[in-house]
Amino acid sequence: MYGADYYPEHWDESVWENHVKMMKEIGIEWVRVGEFAWSIVEPEEGRYDFSKLEKPLKLLKDAGIKIIVGTPTAAPPMWLIKKHPHVLPVDKFGRQKGAGSRRHYCPANDVYREYSKKIVEKYAQHLSTYADMWQIDNEFGCHDTTLCYCESTRRAFIEWLKKRYVSIDELNYRWGNRFWSQTVNDWDEIVLPINTPAFENPHMMLDFFRFSTDIHIDYMNMQIEIIRKYSEKPITHNFMVDFFDLDYKKLSEHIDLVSWDNYVSTKIYDPLRQAANHDLMRSLKKKPFLVMEQQPGRVNWKTINEQYPDGYLRLWIKQAHLHGALGVLVFRFDQIQWGAEQFHGALLDYAGKKTDRCEEFAQAKRETQGVVVPQKEVAIYFSYENAWIHRINHLNRNFNYWESVMEIYKGVRRLGYNADFVFDDDEIDSYRLLIVPYAMYLPEKLIEKLETFQGDVLVTCMTSIKDEYNWMRTDFPYGLQRLLGLEIVDFAGTEKVDLNVSNLQLSGNFWCDKIKVKDAEVLGSFETGPFVGMPCVTKRGNKYYVATVADEFFYTFLLGNLLPARFVGGGVDAIQTREKLMLLNVRDHESVVWMSNKKIALGAFESWEV
Amino acid sequence: MYGADYYPEHWDESVWENHVKMMKEIGIEWVRVGEFAWSIVEPEEGRYDFSKLEKPLKLLKDAGIKIIVGTPTAAPPMWLIKKHPHVLPVDKFGRQKGAGSRRHYCPANDVYREYSKKIVEKYAQHLSTYADMWQIDNEFGCHDTTLCYCESTRRAFIEWLKKRYVSIDELNYRWGNRFWSQTVNDWDEIVLPINTPAFENPHMMLDFFRFSTDIHIDYMNMQIEIIRKYSEKPITHNFMVDFFDLDYKKLSEHIDLVSWDNYVSTKIYDPLRQAANHDLMRSLKKKPFLVMEQQPGRVNWKTINEQYPDGYLRLWIKQAHLHGALGVLVFRFDQIQWGAEQFHGALLDYAGKKTDRCEEFAQAKRETQGVVVPQKEVAIYFSYENAWIHRINHLNRNFNYWESVMEIYKGVRRLGYNADFVFDDDEIDSYRLLIVPYAMYLPEKLIEKLETFQGDVLVTCMTSIKDEYNWMRTDFPYGLQRLLGLEIVDFAGTEKVDLNVSNLQLSGNFWCDKIKVKDAEVLGSFETGPFVGMPCVTKRGNKYYVATVADEFFYTFLLGNLLPARFVGGGVDAIQTREKLMLLNVRDHESVVWMSNKKIALGAFESWEV
Amino acid sequence: MYGADYYPEHWDESVWENHVKMMKEIGIEWVRVGEFAWSIVEPEEGRYDFSKLEKPLKLLKDAGIKIIVGTPTAAPPMWLIKKHPHVLPVDKFGRQKGAGSRRHYCPANDVYREYSKKIVEKYAQHLSTYADMWQIDNEFGCHDTTLCYCESTRRAFIEWLKKRYVSIDELNYRWGNRFWSQTVNDWDEIVLPINTPAFENPHMMLDFFRFSTDIHIDYMNMQIEIIRKYSEKPITHNFMVDFFDLDYKKLSEHIDLVSWDNYVSTKIYDPLRQAANHDLMRSLKKKPFLVMEQQPGRVNWKTINEQYPDGYLRLWIKQAHLHGALGVLVFRFDQIQWGAEQFHGALLDYAGKKTDRCEEFAQAKRETQGVVVPQKEVAIYFSYENAWIHRINHLNRNFNYWESVMEIYKGVRRLGYNADFVFDDDEIDSYRLLIVPYAMYLPEKLIEKLETFQGDVLVTCMTSIKDEYNWMRTDFPYGLQRLLGLEIVDFAGTEKVDLNVSNLQLSGNFWCDKIKVKDAEVLGSFETGPFVGMPCVTKRGNKYYVATVADEFFYTFLLGNLLPARFVGGGVDAIQTREKLMLLNVRDHESVVWMSNKKIALGAFESWEV
Repeated sequence: MYGADYYPEHWDESVWENHVKMMKEIGIEWVRVGEFAWSIVEPEEGRYDFSKLEKPLKLLKDAGIKIIVGTPTAAPPMWLIKKHPHVLPVDKFGRQKGAGSRRHYCPANDVYREYSKKIVEKYAQHLSTYADMWQIDNEFGCHDTTLCYCESTRRAFIEWLKKRYVSIDELNYRWGNRFWSQTVNDWDEIVLPINTPAFENPHMMLDFFRFSTDIHIDYMNMQIEIIRKYSEKPITHNFMVDFFDLDYKKLSEHIDLVSWDNYVSTKIYDPLRQAANHDLMRSLKKKPFLVMEQQPGRVNWKTINEQYPDGYLRLWIKQAHLHGALGVLVFRFDQIQWGAEQFHGALLDYAGKKTDRCEEFAQAKRETQGVVVPQKEVAIYFSYENAWIHRINHLNRNFNYWESVMEIYKGVRRLGYNADFVFDDDEIDSYRLLIVPYAMYLPEKLIEKLETFQGDVLVTCMTSIKDEYNWMRTDFPYGLQRLLGLEIVDFAGTEKVDLNVSNLQLSGNFWCDKIKVKDAEVLGSFETGPFVGMPCVTKRGNKYYVATVADEFFYTFLLGNLLPARFVGGGVDAIQTREKLMLLNVRDHESVVWMSNKKIALGAFESWEV
Repeated sequence: MYGADYYPEHWDESVWENHVKMMKEIGIEWVRVGEFAWSIVEPEEGRYDFSKLEKPLKLLKDAGIKIIVGTPTAAPPMWLIKKHPHVLPVDKFGRQKGAGSRRHYCPANDVYREYSKKIVEKYAQHLSTYADMWQIDNEFGCHDTTLCYCESTRRAFIEWLKKRYVSIDELNYRWGNRFWSQTVNDWDEIVLPINTPAFENPHMMLDFFRFSTDIHIDYMNMQIEIIRKYSEKPITHNFMVDFFDLDYKKLSEHIDLVSWDNYVSTKIYDPLRQAANHDLMRSLKKKPFLVMEQQPGRVNWKTINEQYPDGYLRLWIKQAHLHGALGVLVFRFDQIQWGAEQFHGALLDYAGKKTDRCEEFAQAKRETQGVVVPQKEVAIYFSYENAWIHRINHLNRNFNYWESVMEIYKGVRRLGYNADFVFDDDEIDSYRLLIVPYAMYLPEKLIEKLETFQGDVLVTCMTSIKDEYNWMRTDFPYGLQRLLGLEIVDFAGTEKVDLNVSNLQLSGNFWCDKIKVKDAEVLGSFETGPFVGMPCVTKRGNKYYVATVADEFFYTFLLGNLLPARFVGGGVDAIQTREKLMLLNVRDHESVVWMSNKKIALGAFESWEV
Repeated sequence: MYGADYYPEHWDESVWENHVKMMKEIGIEWVRVGEFAWSIVEPEEGRYDFSKLEKPLKLLKDAGIKIIVGTPTAAPPMWLIKKHPHVLPVDKFGRQKGAGSRRHYCPANDVYREYSKKIVEKYAQHLSTYADMWQIDNEFGCHDTTLCYCESTRRAFIEWLKKRYVSIDELNYRWGNRFWSQTVNDWDEIVLPINTPAFENPHMMLDFFRFSTDIHIDYMNMQIEIIRKYSEKPITHNFMVDFFDLDYKKLSEHIDLVSWDNYVSTKIYDPLRQAANHDLMRSLKKKPFLVMEQQPGRVNWKTINEQYPDGYLRLWIKQAHLHGALGVLVFRFDQIQWGAEQFHGALLDYAGKKTDRCEEFAQAKRETQGVVVPQKEVAIYFSYENAWIHRINHLNRNFNYWESVMEIYKGVRRLGYNADFVFDDDEIDSYRLLIVPYAMYLPEKLIEKLETFQGDVLVTCMTSIKDEYNWMRTDFPYGLQRLLGLEIVDFAGTEKVDLNVSNLQLSGNFWCDKIKVKDAEVLGSFETGPFVGMPCVTKRGNKYYVATVADEFFYTFLLGNLLPARFVGGGVDAIQTREKLMLLNVRDHESVVWMSNKKIALGAFESWEV
């Protein structure tokens, strides 16, 4: 599935034919269209004109190009906002957000839902003929829009809470409303925490995040239901890089396949970070996924919008394929001169001519075949709810869940092993090693699975210290004390601390546990910090515990005992399939790795298999 | 008075007895209760249920434990907010603050006052039997709530202004309203400075701070009056660390004793900073004070919430005692699993068992007896109004009044001398040295006292250059020129400058005066900065002037001439009483000091007396 | 024209005579008055009392002092705000700004316009007898007030857009409204971009900046028209330092002369920055200008308000004269004890006595004669629209147009040459060198002029890549490819990069072009960055191109080939007139320069001519 995102409605119809011709030349097989075209197809309420989509889609279809149709609800038209300003979302200071960019709607708003239904139905009626796949809306939650503080949201949240807690007493209890006099005696007394002088209620906040995922799912399902009346084609939604405001695991259960938008989110391209995002996306459904938007080179939304030299687009496509992608669509095909993204790159240039990236695209296509299926080797437990729990309330505000999970991920990957992220209901027994990092709330079912799991287990600090209501447990790590042979009797936020592990000096950060060893071997101890001299790494059989937050270097060393390195050397991204070990040089110059006594030298962005 | 803060309403009544039993074991003699329990005792408007307080208080009383009852007005219940949203405060951008945390009320709001009266009366009726002391509300001004910009505040401010200025012409004159066309011709034209494009009127702002203190006093007195109908027990309010938004001196005149909440406000525990806060609190009424909340170890509201190793709670209790505290209540007795403070430590642990801190508490209690009364030695003039004046308008925004006063305080303390803070009406003649630092507005009565004061005097830059309306004086330092034998002819904000004092190179910062010496000896001069070569330290008899802002090191050196060091060596906090010099090692390892030829080695947190 | 800004309404009338007497002693010939006196002359709606202005103006007049009268509309009185709160402006988060400082009005508001007309008419009626010049309002746009988001502004913007685009289809097309579904089908659907979740429409934003200049011009012209009914004296408005929110070029066309307020805008006084501002102000009308407010020494609005040592006021007055000023008014004559500017310096001191600055003022006056007319030598193309274009949308947010233009300016000036800024309609043929830096949008008429221009030309990156609607061009640099002998095929934001120019290692920053050389000599290449090895400086005949943003050092070197240095040595500001080269030592100590074999040593702030 190789292609690009395309906006025929941005062009005069005279150029469509040439666009399609160039697509064929480049080798584009799929295009995504339509996801911001509401005001084009419904310029005034009730007046529809689909010609700007139907005509080019016919040309594409005739040329044998497959089509993904995006519903246009991420950007309501101005006439709708003018007539119904209350569909606009409200920020946490109580200020209404405005029209003039995108994502200026609240998914809980009934009026907006009615309009959404109508336009989606029109899309389905007009475009089902052409659609080989559907995308619902675009990047839910983008631009910090996940949480809305408007009155529609408050009412929907209350309904959600009624279902969850049934009785107001139960809610008061679970939310700890006895604290700071927050008891409610009527559902309608519940307010969203707008511009509060002090800290918000952490139990409410966890529910508010959960609700916000559910209201987006509900809004998405409303659209899916309409499309299903007209089309049986697969439906997806495009997820984002390094994004945890919404529970993508839960969203993924309602769509046929996962797709995501692969942008370099850091100042400098970090191959293992992009790999971690690929692996997370593949892990959501444990199925191949699609890259719906692939950064072509330069973007427009960063502080410094650098341009990647020749070859990087080829690399990114190959890397997506290596991690199990079905294919890659480049954002975008056509370069526009105007709009907020006028500085964003594309496959074409401003004059409408093909850039060198078109050849890169074709080359990457030639170099990749079939769908790669990585072997199950290492599982890393991950939970979007924990991402929220870590954000709501802290011992250490500087700690970031995903960043620290990625440090462990990188340790695994440097040793040459595949990593899957596993979620609450996933099967874990096929993995040789299960890592449970920073899982504040570890569901009882996971604890049970761990008890019977035969493989190696590594648990870190901050794990199983809270329950599903964001309450602290009363003993730590809850449910894992026997398994690990220890008890946590105290903990602390911390700056960087020194560790002694097997007499190497390593370092920890953010958090320290005070361990009381019951039945475990001590592999390392704190050299500085509040619990100096106390254990920081323990082992009971093949169950390990790490009592602080450690980095990639620490984990490459520690996990080296459990996962003998498959090769020595850097600069490559490696995936083990049932048949072979696949290597991809992620550097723009030669990388060398050694496998036993064999030297493998890979040119820039070259692949190699053994 | 040793004890803890306790929240019986957070628990099922089945555990109360065990709580009281453990308190007795630990040696707890006092508890504070009730200050956030409004929604517990009045779950719906007019329906009262005091059983969650009365029952445990009876158990405590029966066990001989004394009780401080806090009125619950710092956190109005949700039903009140729903019915009367206008009791919510408004921030300086004009945005209403929301419910969902605490301190979400405006003390000027009449509706809220009516509700406050009712609940306080109920508290007094139900709990006077148990109360051995009262606390009004909780931490006025916390979370930046001192200044409110709502309409109730505006109206109350106008009434306050009418009393102060009587005529609108007088107000226009004193506020300099001729500047930038701000003249009002009717009281009702006065508006609060919400979201102003440019700088606020500095005279209005000073009055707005004064008013904000007065409205809090007024609100507090309204509660005191009600309680006094039912109880003769002492009444207090709990002040905060490093807090200057409210005039605590003025507040303290309306309560029977001062209490404060002793939290480590800096990244690393700074013993002399906490000491300065103790001394300031003792100085307010020149009487013993109470630590109403003592940080137990870890808190929850910092960026990194570190845990203090064993022994620190013992230290903090001993230090409070050393500085004249009547006693210390640890915040809090019971550890809760939920609420915004779920990560805050306590004497118990999450499982309800005693932590090691209980033993520390008992040990500190054994090590301290009676109330320490420090001798009057050095007086440092301090004024909350000056704290506001420094914030409102600046030559140098980087200057912080309290931080710079503390540098001088530390110099005094390092030499082994006691420091009292003295206020406008305080007696000063019993001190051997009076320091007047950064006192922008020095009241005429202070100037008069200085003229007859026999002891040493040290005055710094920024002193006596403004009047009570926040006008500049016309000659500087106003009223002190003869005393000091000099005149200030110009001044400037500055970065760090070099000073030459007795040929040592020291440094100044923030502000430089251009001195015209009339009748004084020059002890030091500026080596850099705008007034290079001009005097920076002068002396006329025993009256000194320092023309810049200098640090602890400078003052340890300069004051060494006036206060011969009582000992040599660091790591101790020292207090001189009439009978003895008391030393406390504030380090978690040995400290050594020398007194003449005598070496005194103190173990971690140990005390010593001579 | 030497004088000061004066506020008689701030004083009791008893001191006026003495003020005038001192003015005469100092040598003050001009004063500006009245620009913040609305509430003085109209304390209540419709009640006028001009005595606080007329009486002192008569005294001044009688003493032969000339008078500039400022209209008082920059600070509406409180009674007006109370009666019509909707004249208050609204910020980009939709929050109304408040009264209590200044500039709290929206120039698009009709009600405010009516009140403005009335007060200006009264001013004209009462004060025309005294006025030798008029100033309209005060510092339009100060305190970030250029853009207003209120409903009056929205309506006025829509009217402006109707005139500009006539048809809604044209507006939709030019604004690229097809992007993100922003099409409008009715003018009234246009909203201001208040608190938008994502990026604003860049085409709308450019129009919004344009409109905001026009609405200020419109508001200013409304006042000019009224004054013209009563007075034929010159009219000006006081511009600001380093300020680009408003199009001063366009504003300057509606006033008789340019005046500006010369404050040191940086932490440390940078002589060439102040010089650049002088030259920009002179360039607006290519005529002598006035310094309406000259910083006297200390100001009050900086983080650290330093005081300049003796001599700096003399320097600043001399520097203004050197760059073609008609004269300088010091802000302010009288020092006040109160108001938001109480820490701002003046010619008098707080006690009303003359400071040493009075003598400096007199000295500077003695040292300067006539009006300096700099020769036309180097022209730097400048455009306020480009300042906006650079702010609206970026490849690199760290890039600042004016700061980078100033680097080039400084290169020219270090070589001893005059620099004029030239605008779209200016004549360019009298210059020997024309520099076109970072001119995103280069109007067609400029491109045409460049084709026939005989002198040297230097064009930089980012030039001529957009059109007047803020669309990207399709080939770069549009219209200049033949002239420069090259084509830009790609570009990128960048951090600092190394350059090799004539084998010297220099550096670039912010932006890199990928050049395809057609018919040009390569003078330098990129040593690092995305386009390593590719050309960074080219030359075709006497037309140069620089493909990145470079600093003062780079330009002193590169331009040295075109402009042989007039002298060697630093610390002087130099202007070449038809008759002579004038040098001014801008250091407070000796500076030495060499002209061929001649050594010229200049004492602090001394001038020299050859």
